[in-house]
Parts: sequence; C-alpha cells; structure tokens
Amino acid sequence: MTPASRAECEDLDRADPLGRFRSEFDLPAGLIYLDGNSLGAMPRNVTAALQKVAAEEWARGLIRSWNHAGWVDAGTRVGAKIARLLGAAEDEVVVADSTSINLYKAIGAAIQAGHDGWVLTDEGNFPTDLYVVEAAVRQFGAKGLRLVPRERLREEIRSDVDLVTASHVDYRTGHMLDMAELTEAAGAAGALFVWDLCHSAGAVPVDLAEAGVDLAVGCTYKYLNGGPGSPAFIHVSSRFQDRLRSPIPGWFGHQDTFAFGSEYAPAGGARRFQAGTPGILGLAGLEVAVDLWLDVDMATARAKSVALSELLIDRVGERCAPHGVGLASPRDPALRGSHVSLTHPDAHGVVQALGAAGVIADHRPPDLVRLGLTPLYTRFVDVWDAIEILAEVLDSQTYREAAFAVRERVP
Amino acid sequence: MTPASRAECEDLDRADPLGRFRSEFDLPAGLIYLDGNSLGAMPRNVTAALQKVAAEEWARGLIRSWNHAGWVDAGTRVGAKIARLLGAAEDEVVVADSTSINLYKAIGAAIQAGHDGWVLTDEGNFPTDLYVVEAAVRQFGAKGLRLVPRERLREEIRSDVDLVTASHVDYRTGHMLDMAELTEAAGAAGALFVWDLCHSAGAVPVDLAEAGVDLAVGCTYKYLNGGPGSPAFIHVSSRFQDRLRSPIPGWFGHQDTFAFGSEYAPAGGARRFQAGTPGILGLAGLEVAVDLWLDVDMATARAKSVALSELLIDRVGERCAPHGVGLASPRDPALRGSHVSLTHPDAHGVVQALGAAGVIADHRPPDLVRLGLTPLYTRFVDVWDAIEILAEVLDSQTYREAAFAVRERVP
Repeated sequence: MTPASRAECEDLDRADPLGRFRSEFDLPAGLIYLDGNSLGAMPRNVTAALQKVAAEEWARGLIRSWNHAGWVDAGTRVGAKIARLLGAAEDEVVVADSTSINLYKAIGAAIQAGHDGWVLTDEGNFPTDLYVVEAAVRQFGAKGLRLVPRERLREEIRSDVDLVTASHVDYRTGHMLDMAELTEAAGAAGALFVWDLCHSAGAVPVDLAEAGVDLAVGCTYKYLNGGPGSPAFIHVSSRFQDRLRSPIPGWFGHQDTFAFGSEYAPAGGARRFQAGTPGILGLAGLEVAVDLWLDVDMATARAKSVALSELLIDRVGERCAPHGVGLASPRDPALRGSHVSLTHPDAHGVVQALGAAGVIADHRPPDLVRLGLTPLYTRFVDVWDAIEILAEVLDSQTYREAAFAVRERVP
Repeated sequence: MTPASRAECEDLDRADPLGRFRSEFDLPAGLIYLDGNSLGAMPRNVTAALQKVAAEEWARGLIRSWNHAGWVDAGTRVGAKIARLLGAAEDEVVVADSTSINLYKAIGAAIQAGHDGWVLTDEGNFPTDLYVVEAAVRQFGAKGLRLVPRERLREEIRSDVDLVTASHVDYRTGHMLDMAELTEAAGAAGALFVWDLCHSAGAVPVDLAEAGVDLAVGCTYKYLNGGPGSPAFIHVSSRFQDRLRSPIPGWFGHQDTFAFGSEYAPAGGARRFQAGTPGILGLAGLEVAVDLWLDVDMATARAKSVALSELLIDRVGERCAPHGVGLASPRDPALRGSHVSLTHPDAHGVVQALGAAGVIADHRPPDLVRLGLTPLYTRFVDVWDAIEILAEVLDSQTYREAAFAVRERVP
C-alpha cells in the first residue's frame, strides 16, 4: 500500500528509520533532487575532511603524510570499507582510477589469463563499457565480442563463451539482472563474469560472496555519494587474485611500491589492480561518504527505495497517465534498481521544465525521464511533490518551451 | 659566484624576483622543505578552492555543476593551461588519470598506430615506467623492449627502433637529457619519442613545440604543486592526433560524451586520451597551482633553480666533503634538473636525521640523499641552513641511530 496523501507521506517520513541520514547531507533548500543516481548529494562532513587533508595533511605534513596520514593505504583502506558494503572480503576490493579504466583492467586481465574465447555482453550496456570492452577484446586477442539483448544474456552463455560482462542495473530502465544466477551460469560454462555495479553500489543490496562473483567494477559518485568524479573501485575475488594480473602494472600495484625494483611483482589481493599514485583529495571525499554508508542497514535502505519507487509509479499512474507518460522501468520492484524511468515523447523538454520548477531529474535519449530515488536523503514527500510538479508541467505544457533551452549534458 | 655567507643568501632572497611567490604557499614554520620534487607545497588558495567546489558547486549545484561550474571541461581547461607552461598548443595537452595510465595509453597508441618494431628505453628509467612500458610492448605486440644505459640512448636509436621513451630528468641523479636532439634523432629513424616529464614540468624550461616532441606524459604533484596524487597530463602533438587513438576509449575521450552512441568516435585534440569521468576535487586543487605557474617566468625560475643548486653543491663541497658525501648529479648545471642528489653510504640514516633536525629530503636506494630545489618557495637561506644542518648531522654522526628508525616510504 503506497501512501494516498501528502499527509501520509509525511507520516512515513517521520517514521523512517533512515530519516536521520538526511541531515548528514548538505542539500539546497527548496530543491527536490532526484538525480542522486548521477551525482550523489554531498555529505556535510566532506568540507571538514577536505580542509583537514589540505590544510593539515598536505600543507603541514607535506610528503610525510604519505605515511603519517595514511595516504599510502587510502586505496586499500577505502576499498576494504566498500567491500563490507558489497559483501566481499576486505582485500578483494580496491579504490583506484575510473570505472572505464577498471573495466579495461578487468577485461584485459581475464583475457590474458586465458579467457580468450567469445566475450558476451548486453548490446544496451552503458556506452563507455561497450567502447572499452570492444577495445580490450581486440587488443588482448579474444575471439570476438557478442552483443545480445539484455533479456537474452542468460541463454547466450554457451560453452564457447569465456567472458561475460554486463551492468547489474541498467542505466536507462533500472532493470536489475539476477547476479547470482548469471554468475553461476557463466561459471558453469567456464566463463568469468565481470559485473558493472555503477547503479548498484548503495542502490540495491549486493552480496558478492553469496553470488559467487568473480570480478566487478563500479563508480562511487552516484548512490555512494563520493563526489564528482570520485575514484572508482574494482573487486577481484580471492579465487582469482593469484592468476589475474592487471594489464597496467603501475607501482601502486607492486607488492613493494617503494623498493624501486626493476622487476614487477604484483601485490596480493585486489591491490594489484591499483596503478599510479592515488588521488588523495578524491579519496578523502569518498571516505567520508563510505563511512556514512557503514552505518546504514542495506535491507532497510532497499525497503525504503522500493517504497519510494512504488509511490512514484503509482502517483505517475494517477496523475500523469493521460499525458502520454509511460513506464520504462520494470513494474516488478524485484527487477528494479533504485531509479525509475518514465517515457515521454519530449523527455528533454520535460526534464528542463522540471528543473525550472525545482525538481532535478535527468534525460536519457531518446525519450527517458530518469528519476533517482536515493534512500539516504530522498523523502516520501519529495516524491509526492515531484509528481505533483510533473503533472503541472504536463498539464500546462511548459515543457514545449523548455525543450528549446540549451541542451545540458551530464554524466 | 655563489654566495659565501648566510648574509649574502639573505641579500639574494631580498632581491629574488620570484620572492613574492613564497607567500603564495602555506609552509610550516621552522621547516626546510627540500622534497618539493616529490610532493610540492600547498598553494594557499587551495583550501578556498576546495571549499568552493565542495560547498558551492557540489552541494548547491549538484549535477548541474557539470555544465554550470565547468566540470565537464576541467580536464581540457587545465590541460590547456599546462600546455602554455610546456610550449604546446592548448589542445595538445589534457589532464587525465595518472602518469602510469597515461604512459600506457601513449605507448599503446603508438604501437597500435604501427610503431611496432623495437621499443627503446633507459634501463634506469623510473620503475613504474619500465613496468608499464614492458607490459604495453608485450600486449600491443611490438617486437621487443631494449633497455640500454641512459648515456647510450642517443647511439641506440637505430633504424629498427620504432618507439623511444625516457624520463627527461632522471629521478635519482637529476640528469637531464637533450630533448630536442633525441626527439630529432628518433624522428630521423622513423620512431616516435614518448617523454616522461614528471621531474621537468615546473622544474626546467620545456618547449615541446620547439623540441618537436611527439608525445609526453607527466605528473602534476611535484614541481607543479597540484596536491597529493593530483591527476596527470598527457601531451599529443597535433601532428599525430588524428592517427593516434587511446587504447582505453572511455566516454570522456568520445567526441560527444553524452550522446550515448554505441559507436566510439574519438574527440579531436589530446582530449581523445581522456577516459573515464574526471576527478573534480583533484582537478580543482591542481588548477589553483597551475594558475600560479602561469604568472611565473620560466627562465627566471630556471636561473634561480640553477643558482640554488650551485650554492648547494658548493656548500656541500666546503662543509661535507670529509664525511664521504659524493655528488650523484651532474656537475654541469646544463645537464641537471631541479634537484641535487648526494651519495652517502648511510643515505637512509642521513635523511632520517635531517628530518629530525627539520630538513625534509628523501632517500632513494641504495645510497642517495635527494634534495629538491623548488624555485617558487625555496630560499637561498634555506639551502645555506640545510647544508649547515647536514654538516652537523654528519659531524655528530646522529645518522647512525636514525638509520634504525622505521623506514618510511614515499612516492
């Protein structure tokens, strides 16, 4: 039962066990932010953390802070915390580089380790994933890349497939794959599975150990709230750490980074997938956000995410259906991540008009209005009000003018 | 003529045309920092810039800041500024990733473009460079890697060499290669040259256009003062931009990042060597530092750097020669970068004892005491005092105990 009035939404917000987290974020007054699936809001403690890392650790500690302030281990330390959120062992996750780079490393490592037959992926995978995977398949000499519709991934995992990669949650529709089932199917076929968790980490419960996941990558700037372009993570199961080597063997992946030896000896654990010197400012912002997440019960967050999305879908059905608004996301919450995408022929204009009315969503071509539901700081009243505003935008057709506004493009 | 007294050093500091820059940095009182060649000091304006990017752009602007706060172009914008420092065209340099990743991209791109014969490098090149180059040579199918002594690089550039890579300034000795001569020799042999400018950018005058440089990479956290692990840069000459493609084709290197097209079309200019989403906090710190550099006359900085290093070498000769201290750096300043390395059998202990006495230097195995001379904030009196303290350390042999201190390792 979704709430039937704004007052009921207020009741839900008052009773929300995650309600206290909203005050941990610095959110602009009067704005309904439904784009935390693109860039999460800023945890309040970030500014103090940045001040500390800059004015104390960098300015005062200078080079000594690599040891004294724990910079040298920041990638593995924050990786270990993310591992706890994802149900992995602490040394199976490291923070490093970007998702694109990490996906390249994961695919390259798997192919180099002998998984050089056919590589399978969802033809609608996130574009940068497709670019990077296609390049890695060619460069590392796998047999070729098979692109299939997302719904056929399971049946296309055949014996000649050596490597599969897909986004756990689709960036457009929010459709969520069955991680355990697909990983098992890949394993049974002798293939490794590389999961992209960009729209999963902090969005839906993920238990990498239980699902038997081999390799995974993901960004930290969406639901994890790590900050704009915050560094990404890579997960390598302990089952494969010994035989997988990063194709980019930089010194921070060396077992003894500062020995300056001429021979490369990879570190143990996922740390071997670090490459160059880690960006400490980005890691500092991210660590604040991850520390917040360590206090969150993910099942509670998931329950709230589902309740928010059910409310959104129900309200859209009641208020917006006459205006040609459709649902691109699965109706079954078990198949959805933590965002809901609506369809509208003038989706770009609708998103612009929403923005002008104080509701931040985003547009994905051609016809999607994407609404992110971040359970740590999105309230039930936010969803209620957002759909009221969407109905007004559609009623008044302000989106027709807004469509001519300068097109803004965001990650 | 180097100054013969501390008073003369004070005179030089008072007359220093770069003297005003020292106050632009936040330096700890009472510390002599001679490790700016590892991690540059913090420009004072960094804390305010981080505050702005976090509390205003991220917290208030949220996703809109990708457009409104110029995040989306930060890599090319800061790259264009670094290009001005290095004598390159603005679209020939982009800030992205780490030096390790950028070197991998540069070597991979060159081999993929047909430079797949022998690859030549200095056997004493920075270890991470050797690791990455060796891996790229193997993965991209070049004929093989030839490691030769640095002093033989010129003569080893033969007709079967297709690609050469070396550090312009050696990280241990500070020895500087002749960039124009070697680049020309490579070109005459039909080879591309990839320069590592980690110890050059902000340290010595670099004119990539005049030297006819093909490709270059470098870090920004040393002499450029970009902050711990600040993002690196990559330079791609306009002569090769069309035929060189990054082996890691992420969406920020796509000509239309947010079109979400399934086909990869590389951007023009060096921007095609961006990969994933850029780290905005790291770029914000770096931009403050680069903006400072844009006000510096590099010839003036070089003259001061040489004067500081001459003072250092002369004073070491006068004060420390009886103690088994040697000079690992070239005696001719024209062959030196902006650091001076001394040799001592117990270099580790000496560096520890210096640190305890308020002089930060660093140790490079086996026997080097490395002293960085950063002309924007190192004074003549700092060098004078540092060598007095070094002489005391050697006289009193405090380094013998200090050698047993915990070994600290820093990038």
